[in-house]
Amino acid sequence: MDSIRFFQPHEGLSLSELAEQCGAELADSSLAGRRITGVAPLSRAASEEITFANSRKALPDLKKSKAGAVFVTAALSKEVPEGVASLIIAAPQTGFALAAALLVPDAMRPQTLSGHTGMVHPGALVDPSARLEDGVTVEFGAVIGAEAEIGSGTVISAGASVGRRCRVGRNCHIGPGVTLQHALIGSDVIVHPGTRIGQDGFGYAPGPGGLVKIPQIGRVIVQDHVEIGANTAIDRGALDDTVIGEGTKIDNLVQIGHNVRIGRFCVLVGQVGVAGSATIGNGVMIGGAAGINGHVTIGDGAQIAALSGVATDVPAGARWGGQPARPMQGVLRDAAEANARAFGRSKGRDGGQKK
Amino acid sequence: MDSIRFFQPHEGLSLSELAEQCGAELADSSLAGRRITGVAPLSRAASEEITFANSRKALPDLKKSKAGAVFVTAALSKEVPEGVASLIIAAPQTGFALAAALLVPDAMRPQTLSGHTGMVHPGALVDPSARLEDGVTVEFGAVIGAEAEIGSGTVISAGASVGRRCRVGRNCHIGPGVTLQHALIGSDVIVHPGTRIGQDGFGYAPGPGGLVKIPQIGRVIVQDHVEIGANTAIDRGALDDTVIGEGTKIDNLVQIGHNVRIGRFCVLVGQVGVAGSATIGNGVMIGGAAGINGHVTIGDGAQIAALSGVATDVPAGARWGGQPARPMQGVLRDAAEANARAFGRSKGRDGGQKK
Amino acid sequence: MDSIRFFQPHEGLSLSELAEQCGAELADSSLAGRRITGVAPLSRAASEEITFANSRKALPDLKKSKAGAVFVTAALSKEVPEGVASLIIAAPQTGFALAAALLVPDAMRPQTLSGHTGMVHPGALVDPSARLEDGVTVEFGAVIGAEAEIGSGTVISAGASVGRRCRVGRNCHIGPGVTLQHALIGSDVIVHPGTRIGQDGFGYAPGPGGLVKIPQIGRVIVQDHVEIGANTAIDRGALDDTVIGEGTKIDNLVQIGHNVRIGRFCVLVGQVGVAGSATIGNGVMIGGAAGINGHVTIGDGAQIAALSGVATDVPAGARWGGQPARPMQGVLRDAAEANARAFGRSKGRDGGQKK
Repeated sequence: MDSIRFFQPHEGLSLSELAEQCGAELADSSLAGRRITGVAPLSRAASEEITFANSRKALPDLKKSKAGAVFVTAALSKEVPEGVASLIIAAPQTGFALAAALLVPDAMRPQTLSGHTGMVHPGALVDPSARLEDGVTVEFGAVIGAEAEIGSGTVISAGASVGRRCRVGRNCHIGPGVTLQHALIGSDVIVHPGTRIGQDGFGYAPGPGGLVKIPQIGRVIVQDHVEIGANTAIDRGALDDTVIGEGTKIDNLVQIGHNVRIGRFCVLVGQVGVAGSATIGNGVMIGGAAGINGHVTIGDGAQIAALSGVATDVPAGARWGGQPARPMQGVLRDAAEANARAFGRSKGRDGGQKK
Repeated sequence: MDSIRFFQPHEGLSLSELAEQCGAELADSSLAGRRITGVAPLSRAASEEITFANSRKALPDLKKSKAGAVFVTAALSKEVPEGVASLIIAAPQTGFALAAALLVPDAMRPQTLSGHTGMVHPGALVDPSARLEDGVTVEFGAVIGAEAEIGSGTVISAGASVGRRCRVGRNCHIGPGVTLQHALIGSDVIVHPGTRIGQDGFGYAPGPGGLVKIPQIGRVIVQDHVEIGANTAIDRGALDDTVIGEGTKIDNLVQIGHNVRIGRFCVLVGQVGVAGSATIGNGVMIGGAAGINGHVTIGDGAQIAALSGVATDVPAGARWGGQPARPMQGVLRDAAEANARAFGRSKGRDGGQKK
Repeated sequence: MDSIRFFQPHEGLSLSELAEQCGAELADSSLAGRRITGVAPLSRAASEEITFANSRKALPDLKKSKAGAVFVTAALSKEVPEGVASLIIAAPQTGFALAAALLVPDAMRPQTLSGHTGMVHPGALVDPSARLEDGVTVEFGAVIGAEAEIGSGTVISAGASVGRRCRVGRNCHIGPGVTLQHALIGSDVIVHPGTRIGQDGFGYAPGPGGLVKIPQIGRVIVQDHVEIGANTAIDRGALDDTVIGEGTKIDNLVQIGHNVRIGRFCVLVGQVGVAGSATIGNGVMIGGAAGINGHVTIGDGAQIAALSGVATDVPAGARWGGQPARPMQGVLRDAAEANARAFGRSKGRDGGQKK
């Protein structure tokens, strides 16, 4: 099955074009006209492909590379084998990402099921009171609710539903089976399949005959250039709004509670949970499956390790981890002690199979 | 975009009506006729809105409030500024929840995509052998399987599927894209988008050529007044049933394994996982992302902290947390010790950004 | 509602047939003709039903059993009451699973909504360029994208979407609302509702104006006999493929990152997260909600405890747990110490309700 290709091969870009558009310097200008048609990992990039080497860990593969060109740092460029063109850049992975966007442009946004865009499928339902700009794609089985508004260039994929009075901006991709309710989505937003945005937050008060539902009357605001993974859930606010800031990237199976405010350019890795009314600054990175307590504040630029549990405010720029989360230095020391105890006493017993 | 309103403003209720229906006492009876049209948080409630103050933490906002009325405890009522009506009640948040249910009734159940109810959309599929009572709403793209039964007042939302022979009671809301299989759902149940109820439990036995699937022939029983969040998964029983008791509230992205029995009026917060055959009593609260081991029993009224891992039975009324879960007193002490070590040695090093 | 049956009763198999087909020995050959029509747990199996007793923990129920027959080990067979036929087998649960597959064959694969198979519903959308073998079932609201290929005997359930150029083998069940993109699925694969396979992996590089998306051009390969639970997410590879090996079983709400390679006959329990580029050997078992770090390798046959966090490579055959994960002996000792501290000091205070 290895021959199946989901993306079209590119007709090729010259190294001078790639260098210029990706902000890199071509080390050997005599190779300016070499054509590159695709991207590949360092270990198997061929003579028409471009790749990258990010650090000295890549050296063994780099020395054997047969790639057409490689993004490298100036320091690593001495190790590039003859015949491989060096594109020198401070951040080789970023250069590579930009090159890949040029060489495989179809991968920058999810594809439609038919491969076509720009029309409303007759097997979709668009409420007569909804307003669609020109050039909206609505796939089979999707439904656009009453008084909803969709901007041009946006794709509403098969089986997705856009709730009553929701707004989706321009050039968005709303994936298959996604549901939007009480949501205002900016432009250039990608939402992967099965994600749920804008359902009721989880709020109850104790009552005489059980739990009393607290009506959730806020919204979800998703700003421009946000990307949200698959099967994630973002609840709408209780009285205020839940907000996902510009350029923030959220992975799969993430839970965002009501009233959460996430700043710009944050990264939330898979299975993170953010409890209600937490406030997360700009440029915060949260590792996989970490849990953030309700009502805490995480300062700008903080980094939270995977699997940690944040119970208190985290200062700007801090690197925290563990359960309860605390500065990483303490976490690493505690882990080292646990490992010393575990491996010191038990190695060779239940620590692994003898061969 | 702040002007978009997903809910209709209410024409107004008098403070005497609100006090009576919410079980509160209006401190100044001369304000009995004041009309309230909406709800808002304490920090920004205006003169036609009602709000609440739950504890002394709310004092700064309370003292500046310009709300039309506020639910407060008797103790806090002295702090209510002139012009703001006090509705005195033991549990202000509960009073507020009841008032919100009166003032924003549309928020008590998710809305339909069209804003209308009570009809089967021609773009839905209802098997000829299914039985629908009068007044069932089936939205576009939903499917009702063979011999299924749906009670009056229930909404089956866009793209949801009700499996063969399933039953859904009256006045339920089955959200967009929800799937039911082998499930019997009571009345007044809300299931938010993308939740999966009744698929096969996860059961395999070791066999000669790999794993042998153990057929899962039980059901899922969801009792009345249950609310289940988005993208949650509840497997059907292996030989017996999986049961969710009356009035229990389950949040988003929760995993309930086969044969689990959950009692009445429990609260399971987002990303909780309950492994197969666990038994959970009545009135149990389980914090976010906690994991409950298979086959354990959690007694009535127990509270399990977020992110904890319950490996053993938990007595009724206990408050447990940590991994492995144990009485909270021990967890808090261990956390305090970890924090003392971490912050005592590392503060100002990797503990935060200096400004 | 207890009388509702989702499965047809079987007309009956003789004990000699069951013994032979399940690899068990019938202790009393005079019972060879006894007919069995169903399966039930030991505690309530009746005279036409078969059950199993796996260990001495089952003794109290076994001694009272009124089952028609019971799979037991030779050691336990002495305890089987008179009138109950003993089917002696080394692994009673495996025998029972095989018997259940014979007696409730409809439970071996999810049912269709209509109860019928083998046709493309007129309310489904199959792209004219897709290729379906004979005997494919496509339910209402499902969509098969351009150039996709589906093998005979496969069911594409209501509201599922098979992306452009995807391939699904023979005798698969693709559940309601499942989405496939950039995926090649083998034969005899079951995917439960709402699972997302083949969306973009989570890859960004730091750029001048925020985060730069790294195009994800790999695929997902799911080999034969895999079963995947509900609302799970499996991302496609960045440059290489994400691979799920033959016979592997994945539970609900599991997150599999890009480039992950999972071997044959593994078991991943609910809410596990496997970060990008991790490599998991054959026969690995990963307990519920465990997190596996990116780029680590887990050796063949290793077992990872529920709720643990694997940060480093795990040797073949090892049993690890905890956060960070280490050999279980250390984990159990640390847990025992934590429990001793917690219960030693606090029992009877916040450790439980006195009655």
